[in-house]
Formats: sequence, C-alpha cells, structure tokens
Amino acid sequence: MAVYTEVTDEALVAHLRQYTLGELHSFKGIAEGVENSNYLLTTDTGNYILTLYEKRVDARDLPFFLGLMEHLHAKGIVCPQPVKMQSGEMIGELAGRPAAIITFLEGYSVRRPQPSHCHELGGALARFHIAGEGFSIRRKNALDMDGWRPLFEMSQARADEVTPGLSEMIAKELDYLESNWPAELPSGVIHADLFTDNVFFLKDRLSGIIDFYFACNDLLAYDLAICLNAWCFEPNLSFNTTKARAMLQGYTAVRGLSESEFERLPVLARGSALRFLLTRLYDWLNVPPGALVTPKNPGEYIARLKFHQGIDNAALYGLDREMAGLKA
Amino acid sequence: MAVYTEVTDEALVAHLRQYTLGELHSFKGIAEGVENSNYLLTTDTGNYILTLYEKRVDARDLPFFLGLMEHLHAKGIVCPQPVKMQSGEMIGELAGRPAAIITFLEGYSVRRPQPSHCHELGGALARFHIAGEGFSIRRKNALDMDGWRPLFEMSQARADEVTPGLSEMIAKELDYLESNWPAELPSGVIHADLFTDNVFFLKDRLSGIIDFYFACNDLLAYDLAICLNAWCFEPNLSFNTTKARAMLQGYTAVRGLSESEFERLPVLARGSALRFLLTRLYDWLNVPPGALVTPKNPGEYIARLKFHQGIDNAALYGLDREMAGLKA
Repeated sequence: MAVYTEVTDEALVAHLRQYTLGELHSFKGIAEGVENSNYLLTTDTGNYILTLYEKRVDARDLPFFLGLMEHLHAKGIVCPQPVKMQSGEMIGELAGRPAAIITFLEGYSVRRPQPSHCHELGGALARFHIAGEGFSIRRKNALDMDGWRPLFEMSQARADEVTPGLSEMIAKELDYLESNWPAELPSGVIHADLFTDNVFFLKDRLSGIIDFYFACNDLLAYDLAICLNAWCFEPNLSFNTTKARAMLQGYTAVRGLSESEFERLPVLARGSALRFLLTRLYDWLNVPPGALVTPKNPGEYIARLKFHQGIDNAALYGLDREMAGLKA
Repeated sequence: MAVYTEVTDEALVAHLRQYTLGELHSFKGIAEGVENSNYLLTTDTGNYILTLYEKRVDARDLPFFLGLMEHLHAKGIVCPQPVKMQSGEMIGELAGRPAAIITFLEGYSVRRPQPSHCHELGGALARFHIAGEGFSIRRKNALDMDGWRPLFEMSQARADEVTPGLSEMIAKELDYLESNWPAELPSGVIHADLFTDNVFFLKDRLSGIIDFYFACNDLLAYDLAICLNAWCFEPNLSFNTTKARAMLQGYTAVRGLSESEFERLPVLARGSALRFLLTRLYDWLNVPPGALVTPKNPGEYIARLKFHQGIDNAALYGLDREMAGLKA
C-alpha cells in the first residue's frame, strides 16, 4: 500500500528510452500491492504501471510472472500485459531494483462483492485455469502444504499472543491436512491470491485480473477454495451460501469440476484458510521497523478455518452436485 | 506520501453522483502530499484528483485553498481546478472527511532542477503573485514570524538532540528576525510551499503548480526567498548562484522587485530557512505512531540558515541590481 523505492524523473526518463512508449507525461506513486513499489505512468502512448520488485519477490520468479501475463493475455484473459523493451526483454533495472512496465487495466475492485460479482469471478477463474494450459514455465507454490509447517514454526512460540490456544489449534490442523491433502486432483496454473483487491469490475462486469505475484502450479480447485474464503464470507464472518453458489455456477459453466474436486472442496478450503492464517500470523508478529503497511489481523482466518472444520461435505456450503454439473 | 483514509468503491460511486463526471473507470490511491489522502480517478470525462482532507488541514481554510485555485485558473495560471458538484459546492464529505475533486494536471516534478527550470519557476511565481491580486478571501500565514516562536517552544527542550547548540542558535535567530523583519514590503497571496515536488514540467517547460495547502497572504518576496532555499541549493548544500540568477531573471521579467524587496532578500531567506527548520525539527522530534511518512532531516535547513546568516547583501547570492531591473 505504499511506495518503498523512490524513482527520480531523471532515472525514469532514461529508463523509458529503452522502450518505445514515447515521452513521459506524468508519473505518480500508487498505493497498490503490499510487496512492491508501483507507479502509474502516462506517456504519449497511454497509461502504464511501472513496478519495482522489492526484496519479498524473488527476481528468479519474474520470467514466470511476466511470461504468464503475456501467455494469458494472448489466450484472451483480460489482464495487464508486460511491455517489452526494444531489446525484447521484459525485465529491466531501475533505482537498483528489477523493474517491469505493464499495461494499465481499467476498472476498480469491489470492497463488498455481491452474488453477481461472485458469479463473474467464478467464470473468470475457470477461464484463467483453462488459459493457463500450455504455459511452459513452472513455479512451485512456495506456500503450499510443504511450506506451511516451516512457516508455522516461525510463529509457533508466539501464536498464543494472538489468541490463547492458537498454537495447538494450528498444530492439529497441520496434522490433519498433512494426512488428508488431496494431492491427486487436477493441477495447473493458479492465481493463488485472487482477493477482491485483485479483480477489477466496470459496471458490475469483471474487467480484469491483476497481481500475478503469487501465481504458481498447484491444484486448480484449491484456487476456487481460496476464492470461497476471500469472496463468500460477510464482514461479520458468516458464510454467504448465495455467493458461494453463484461463484460455483460461474466456474462450472466454464470448467466442470470432477467428482473428487467437488468432494474435496471442504479440505481445500481448510488448507486455504490455514495458508492465509499462517502468513497473516507471521506478518502480525513480525512488523518490520519502518513498515508502510498495517498487518492484517489473523483473527479473520481463524474464524474461517473453524467454520470449514465443521464442514465435511460441499453440500453444507450450499453447493449441490447437480449445480456443479455432476450426476445427482 | 501515502493514503491515510481508505475509500470504498461504493462510497466513491455514491459520492460521484453529486457531480457530472459520468461513470467511474478506475481509482487508485496515490502517494502524493504528506498532509492528505489523494486518489487518482478516471471517469467518462477524464482524470481527476480526489483529496480527502486529514486533520492537519483546517476545514475552515478549504474555501480559501479551493477558491484560490479557481481564481488563479481563471487568471490563466496552470493549476488544478476544483470541480463543482451539481449544487455548486466544491467541498463535500467522503469517508468522514471533507473532500474535493480537482482536475488532473499533466507533467511531473523534477528532482534536480537545472538553471532553465529555475528560470521557468521564477516566471511562474511572478505570474502567480500578479494573478493573486483581487482574490477576495484572506488567510493569515499560520507559519509566519508570529508563529515561529510558539513552534520553537514546542521543540526547544529537545532541539539539541538533533545537533548540540541548535536550541541556542534558533533562539538567537528568532531574536534577530523579530528585530529585523521587513513587514513593510509588498504583500499578496503567496504559495508558501513551492518546493520542487509542487511544480510540474513537461519537456523542460513548466506545466503547472500544485498543492495550495500552505497558500496565504504574506510578503511576496518571502515566497521568492522560499524558492531560493528550495531550488538553488545543491544536494551537498552549496548554493548555486547560476540557478539563483536564473530564478531572479525569470521572476523580474514578469514582476519587478522594489529596492526594498531586493535589499531584504537575505533576511527573508533567513526567515524562510528558519520556518522550514522549525517545522522539520518539530516533525523530527514528534513522529506519530503509525506514521506513513519518514520525517525530513532538519539538518539541511540548519545548513541553509547558516549560509544566509553570512549574507548581508543580495549581491552575495550572485544577484545584481541591474538584473533585478533596478538602477545600478
């Protein structure tokens, strides 16, 4: 939500000479994303986002992230497109950071999505999953089940500062998930962070998806479970089945779920809730000096996890097999 | 340099119904200004800046600030123009804050101004001073000489934490300025904060002036002295007489200086250096919890003040009477 690295006009103008975007008209640091520094640029040829990758992003992953945007865009997914330098490269260096310029996407994120937004999101997610097929670079999910236990160990000793008993709750959940994780489900490229901030709408139609910096190869239905967590809980943390049904209908109208994917949604939702609980817990306990971002309270994801622990059947989310295109 | 108040899409869309700007296309928080929250909006009719006024701005001053932009714009000064609501009002309320929408200005600020930029700036400042004539609202400078001593008293006990002897240096300087301040010089509307961040250029021509939230009625030549401090020192804090001469030539080509204004430039420059030293000192010693802005080091203004203390004649800035349009 802030700019970490300042870019001077001189450095930017020199940097732009590597592109064919014409003269710079304006540039402003924007409060978007928590990982990187972003600037909105206007040049002779239009609006762009300049991103400087800060240390939380591994520069070795940039060919995956930027290549994925290019691949998806070519497949008709509305997402930012990396702008190439005259050399053909997509990644340059500015102010001592790896830097890329991507096209500007119209639209804005919806703070309180309605069922119609969830329906749109479901369809877009399924198109994203299909479009990801054939993308040649692979990236392991750094925050998949293998990553949860080491992440937990970094917070374990202090987890009860957030809520008494949290450490034990997470330890048990990890044991459960390690024994029950459905690794055999269909996999492919997932977005892995499709929160409402990363989806733009215009006049209630989904106008694009942004922020691919957690994208990776993992179970497709896990991405859907992330969205159930991110889009279908109300501010009071009650689960809105109308939204969940709308999302699933939107998704399955484009990509059908297998029997196993449908049946394993509850455990995938538990895993997704734990994944965000663990990162929020770590960030909550480890606010760096000079942080420009207020950490998000992990409590919201404790509540989500507890909710999913009580669900052993996707029907309890209000989802039914017929709606998912499966035999009754 | 950050957004203090979050605006939701729902609240913004509802707010925009009071205007005739059409549908919202996008909005992004921008890292501009240290006092307020700013968003860049795009609507059917173009680009705008939405400002939410945070508590450091007194809402009673808004009619002055916004009225001044409107007045200056009508007089041909390139600056943002407040957009009126259908009711004719310029100030609304959004997210519990007074809020205004102003037009978007092309161009970007120059981190390291060259003499040509200083010449442009001088001319724009003189046009600003002339255009301010006839503006009917008045605003006392809250940070004029009357405000310096109370401000100093809030930091006096801890000033030596910054540099030993600083407290005594400031006390003596205040005594000197209170005895020597040239209150009889021509006065009018001044910008009072025309640092490089607040001046936009396009292809090395000045394209506009922004951020009128320190504007007030005060001595016109004091505004020029502020610019000498803000634009004519090198990063190593040496004074660049070529830049000062260029600025003065730009200024006097539009508005001639009186004998007294020219002669009193050194004391005005001391006062200006002290004013920014005092606010930076206060901010340095009083970083609020959760601050999103790193305070600027007051040391730079100690060096400027010391420099001006050694100047008793504007000629020592490299300025000469003839250049200023005065008799030799």
